[in-house]
Amino acid sequence: MIIALDHVAIAVPDLQEAIRRFAEDLGLELAGTEDVEAAQTSTAFLPVTGTRIELIHPLRGQGPVATWLEKRGGGGLHHLCFRTDDLDADVVRLKERGYRFVTEAPTPGAHGTRVIFIHPKSAGGVLIELAEHPADGHP
Amino acid sequence: MIIALDHVAIAVPDLQEAIRRFAEDLGLELAGTEDVEAAQTSTAFLPVTGTRIELIHPLRGQGPVATWLEKRGGGGLHHLCFRTDDLDADVVRLKERGYRFVTEAPTPGAHGTRVIFIHPKSAGGVLIELAEHPADGHP
Repeated sequence: MIIALDHVAIAVPDLQEAIRRFAEDLGLELAGTEDVEAAQTSTAFLPVTGTRIELIHPLRGQGPVATWLEKRGGGGLHHLCFRTDDLDADVVRLKERGYRFVTEAPTPGAHGTRVIFIHPKSAGGVLIELAEHPADGHP
Repeated sequence: MIIALDHVAIAVPDLQEAIRRFAEDLGLELAGTEDVEAAQTSTAFLPVTGTRIELIHPLRGQGPVATWLEKRGGGGLHHLCFRTDDLDADVVRLKERGYRFVTEAPTPGAHGTRVIFIHPKSAGGVLIELAEHPADGHP
């Protein structure tokens, strides 16, 4: 079951410029940055009222976010991530309803999460990530 | 000053299908729908942990969201809206920092808000709305 909007991810061609925009210009708090090898991103986290803006930038200039930025010709809103308390049950339920996923099974995400992406063609053109945090799950 | 992520807006070519996806399939609560004449949208509101998903659909098939859907060839993540406690001060500050806005001055939004959009070319390709709610502002 979905229990929160975990984050909104924005793909950015220049991470420092994007951090300046959201932290200095718009006044959000920069909680930290992390290189997420599984996603091939350098990510900056900016919490705001129960959710988080994540600025995602290609790590070493490669990976799916690099491809996305190239295709689009610049930065933009990339995906939504909903937090669930039972990722496996949600995947089974959504597959039964005809949803397709980008990978067959969940993969490791940042902060010890398990994550999976619903294919945007299954979700009206929106890339939706589902994430289960270690403390939320029912193993 | 920004005090919350007010909502994430998703442009949808079929409002009822999108409501089914987010309410029935993903399990969010549908709080209501409203025709917002100023934005020329039929909008569905789905609150989730301190923010809200807004599904926006062109009212009478016209307006900026209709144009957006046509250009893109389908639905997708449309904009972020941050809630501020002093819209006028934020606009002055951001203009001083070189930000451009879609309109010269704030306009009326849903629920008695005053809103303005930062031009995506000023914000790394992301359309960002700033909204001041009647209870938050300092008139």
